[in-house]
Amino acid sequence: MADRTFAKFTFFKMDPAWRRRDPVDRAEDKREFLAACDDFAEDRSLRTYSTIGTRGDTDMIVLSQSPNLDDLHTLHVVLGQSGLAKWADTPYSFLCTTRVSAYSDENARPEICVSERKYLFLYPMVKKRSWYALDSDERMRIMKSHIAVGRKYPDISINTTYSYGLDDQEFVVSFEGDDPMDFLDLVQELRYTESSAYTESEIPIFTCLSMSTARALDALDGTAVSSVAAVERT
Amino acid sequence: MADRTFAKFTFFKMDPAWRRRDPVDRAEDKREFLAACDDFAEDRSLRTYSTIGTRGDTDMIVLSQSPNLDDLHTLHVVLGQSGLAKWADTPYSFLCTTRVSAYSDENARPEICVSERKYLFLYPMVKKRSWYALDSDERMRIMKSHIAVGRKYPDISINTTYSYGLDDQEFVVSFEGDDPMDFLDLVQELRYTESSAYTESEIPIFTCLSMSTARALDALDGTAVSSVAAVERT
Amino acid sequence: MADRTFAKFTFFKMDPAWRRRDPVDRAEDKREFLAACDDFAEDRSLRTYSTIGTRGDTDMIVLSQSPNLDDLHTLHVVLGQSGLAKWADTPYSFLCTTRVSAYSDENARPEICVSERKYLFLYPMVKKRSWYALDSDERMRIMKSHIAVGRKYPDISINTTYSYGLDDQEFVVSFEGDDPMDFLDLVQELRYTESSAYTESEIPIFTCLSMSTARALDALDGTAVSSVAAVERT
Amino acid sequence: MADRTFAKFTFFKMDPAWRRRDPVDRAEDKREFLAACDDFAEDRSLRTYSTIGTRGDTDMIVLSQSPNLDDLHTLHVVLGQSGLAKWADTPYSFLCTTRVSAYSDENARPEICVSERKYLFLYPMVKKRSWYALDSDERMRIMKSHIAVGRKYPDISINTTYSYGLDDQEFVVSFEGDDPMDFLDLVQELRYTESSAYTESEIPIFTCLSMSTARALDALDGTAVSSVAAVERT
Amino acid sequence: MADRTFAKFTFFKMDPAWRRRDPVDRAEDKREFLAACDDFAEDRSLRTYSTIGTRGDTDMIVLSQSPNLDDLHTLHVVLGQSGLAKWADTPYSFLCTTRVSAYSDENARPEICVSERKYLFLYPMVKKRSWYALDSDERMRIMKSHIAVGRKYPDISINTTYSYGLDDQEFVVSFEGDDPMDFLDLVQELRYTESSAYTESEIPIFTCLSMSTARALDALDGTAVSSVAAVERT
Repeated sequence: MADRTFAKFTFFKMDPAWRRRDPVDRAEDKREFLAACDDFAEDRSLRTYSTIGTRGDTDMIVLSQSPNLDDLHTLHVVLGQSGLAKWADTPYSFLCTTRVSAYSDENARPEICVSERKYLFLYPMVKKRSWYALDSDERMRIMKSHIAVGRKYPDISINTTYSYGLDDQEFVVSFEGDDPMDFLDLVQELRYTESSAYTESEIPIFTCLSMSTARALDALDGTAVSSVAAVERT
Repeated sequence: MADRTFAKFTFFKMDPAWRRRDPVDRAEDKREFLAACDDFAEDRSLRTYSTIGTRGDTDMIVLSQSPNLDDLHTLHVVLGQSGLAKWADTPYSFLCTTRVSAYSDENARPEICVSERKYLFLYPMVKKRSWYALDSDERMRIMKSHIAVGRKYPDISINTTYSYGLDDQEFVVSFEGDDPMDFLDLVQELRYTESSAYTESEIPIFTCLSMSTARALDALDGTAVSSVAAVERT
Repeated sequence: MADRTFAKFTFFKMDPAWRRRDPVDRAEDKREFLAACDDFAEDRSLRTYSTIGTRGDTDMIVLSQSPNLDDLHTLHVVLGQSGLAKWADTPYSFLCTTRVSAYSDENARPEICVSERKYLFLYPMVKKRSWYALDSDERMRIMKSHIAVGRKYPDISINTTYSYGLDDQEFVVSFEGDDPMDFLDLVQELRYTESSAYTESEIPIFTCLSMSTARALDALDGTAVSSVAAVERT
Repeated sequence: MADRTFAKFTFFKMDPAWRRRDPVDRAEDKREFLAACDDFAEDRSLRTYSTIGTRGDTDMIVLSQSPNLDDLHTLHVVLGQSGLAKWADTPYSFLCTTRVSAYSDENARPEICVSERKYLFLYPMVKKRSWYALDSDERMRIMKSHIAVGRKYPDISINTTYSYGLDDQEFVVSFEGDDPMDFLDLVQELRYTESSAYTESEIPIFTCLSMSTARALDALDGTAVSSVAAVERT
Repeated sequence: MADRTFAKFTFFKMDPAWRRRDPVDRAEDKREFLAACDDFAEDRSLRTYSTIGTRGDTDMIVLSQSPNLDDLHTLHVVLGQSGLAKWADTPYSFLCTTRVSAYSDENARPEICVSERKYLFLYPMVKKRSWYALDSDERMRIMKSHIAVGRKYPDISINTTYSYGLDDQEFVVSFEGDDPMDFLDLVQELRYTESSAYTESEIPIFTCLSMSTARALDALDGTAVSSVAAVERT
């Protein structure tokens, strides 16, 4: 197994006009999208999240991962062929990779977002340039106190990925947890750490509901793919 | 009753093309939206505000509350099925929660925006990072003088909610009052307090007219749902 | 008569597709809009400005005033019912009120923009927070020298209104004059005053041609409402 | 002849849907636009530039000039009646005037952009407020060294206009030249002058190809108005 | 051969509605675009990149080069005549030129992006004005340590171009490489150099897959131009 992976967060927002389509057409649009996701997921990691009820500018997020960037290109070509892509915009997109951290002894992760927790909290991050001008001991000291706060919340898992030179942000940070209020308390506590002063930007912030691709698609128009398919086949 | 709640402000802006639809179709679009709101409001809090005449980028705001975030997801899936959602954009969206304040002895509120006052004044807020670097006594001292100004305006109720890590802002602040000029005077007076220097951002600011969901929907096209329904049934 | 008023600047930009409509339909669209304005203006102040030829992002501005905010809501509900609203966007919107100034002895104005001058120069303004941290004598001193520059241009009338807590800006400032080059010279001279350093933002800036609502509507498609109406009736 | 003039840069970007129209319809759309321009140009200055191949957000710029602002309003009303306006957006718009410079002995220009050079390099500019706080000798000294750099490039003509209080920028600066690489070298050299530190903003920057209105219109769809007209008339 | 060249990066994003067109129509749209590119490439440099799977706001980039700016204008007029342009937006556009660097002994390049590497990493850059206020020895010293980091990654080729006065950015920087993770490591290492503190802006950042124009067009809808053409011809 590869020791690093590319991860791509692709955001979809449906055109309101899509909701005016016939339910059978919408079901077919979703089935084509689902088939592309299922095919990719056979031997690579693909996860889906819904942001309906938490954001207004995006409906669904697909996180696809592969050690081979061309794999992600191919997946998105196929997604673009689906009926859903004919009525969807892509308001955000984050490309990133895993790598060895300068502040821990862990290896680079071959895959991120592997938990079964209910929610994903996701944001792109850029540090101030003054951070990079600190000497390395100073950065290590500051990061250690930052990490110590995180350790007080053992039910929250963190996934840090890197985008330097590949996309607009420097990091894509995602946290998995079952209790959003728990995560809110963690982030508020982090505001008081020294590291917080070195953040240039960490918005937009997405609260995401983790669910199967089929369920996330069903949430787009409140209709289960399977039930319409059944009706259609009769 | 839960001691904290999630609150979701969802903003709707109608596509001008919706106004070209047949009045009977528009009435049906609104009835479906109203039914979804009424259903949610049976055992949870849902309030509606109109911004027609006060803003140009949004027409209506729905504030839904529940201690369970999945409830808000479900409500928005159902709203997305309504005819109105086929012609509406969501230009803003704020997700937040109540919690115990560091600066008062009150408990976390199980519900916000409970008054019968005529107007809601609403904005997302982010503080400068230098605020968080102050020591806690200093923050307490500054907040007390800020709060003292608010106390001079007893006819204005404040609702502070928190969004750290859940959405782009740190706070969603909303005030209820019957006299907008009274609120303007309060905000102007707050500019001269020490706390004001620690505000990074507090726009956009929404002046909202509190009204029933039915009336807010009627304001969208100047037509009462009930009257058109009556015509249609004959 | 009330001693303070709400003022609402509402900006309209026509969808290019509106220009493809039949002239008779466009005339009807404009007549409905005109009727709503005329009705409001019977006992309240409503003025209209054209920005065709001066801006690219807006075509027409309606300034409506009332001491009662609900009046402005009702006007905009009725405007939204007009045919014109089915093809128009609202790229900007400023809500503000008059009030007693801290820097003069005048009462609050019951109405703004009352001159017959040809042009209106309009912008929203936000001051730096450091302005509010000055002591009041210092602010008074700085404002007096600012006001002294204005007095050198007696043919320019100023209208200052306040938006603290009601809308995104702190002030909406509008000047009336017959000679834009005269106003340009005034603004350039103000750059060199001490007050200028305390401006956080004063854009966008709108040069507006004052005209009757009928003429401003006619400018939208170069066609006089009355002439088309006459044709249509024959 | 007037000693000052208003100048209006109006930018046009065609809706991709316009390219789907019938060639005969497109030719008629362009002829109507051309007629409005030719009519204005009979006794006032009107120049046209194409940005196809140099920018992605605009296709064509019309620079119209008159000492009377109402003239520019009227021109844009007539342009709005043309078929082209039914399929065009106006992504940028700059209103400005000529005036006597504080840093030279020249009179205000009655007209700008009078050369026959091939390219126009155009941008709106805003200076930092700290510039205006310098004393006038200091500003004169800094401007003189700035102007000295310009003099090293005699094949580049500069046109400075003013927008204080009339539009968002303070200046609209446009340079005419035959060699873009020459202009690039000039701008790079200006970066090292003291005046450069007082620039708040000088984007967007437009490289424009000067051409007749007819040729600029032909470039919109690669079709000569005259040839289609000929075909249509047969 | 010319010793300097203009380079134009033109970005295309397909309207989702294009994907609803008949496959035969889409194939024709692409063929027309391909023909315009092939024609230009006969005696000038034209390269194509796909960003499907790496960005959400753009699908394809065409890099065209010529020592004659009018050549680029003509190419874009012809591209605008293709069927693809009837359904495409141009979300970004960068115009730039090669020139002699102040920090190396190399001549200006007559052509950029000449390698056969798999990926292009591309971004516009603006330096802080404080950079230009440094004396030239200081700038040379800082650039040499910056360049030294780049030399540690021999498998990454850099292409620096200049846009001063021609477009919004000062530089367009593009790197060619076969391993995105290698490039990420290089960019991260550059953060710690002194030059990094003088960067005002270097976003957006595009990770681009280098491919033939035909393949980049095929990726737009997952269909090979040639195969559809074959079907169509039968």
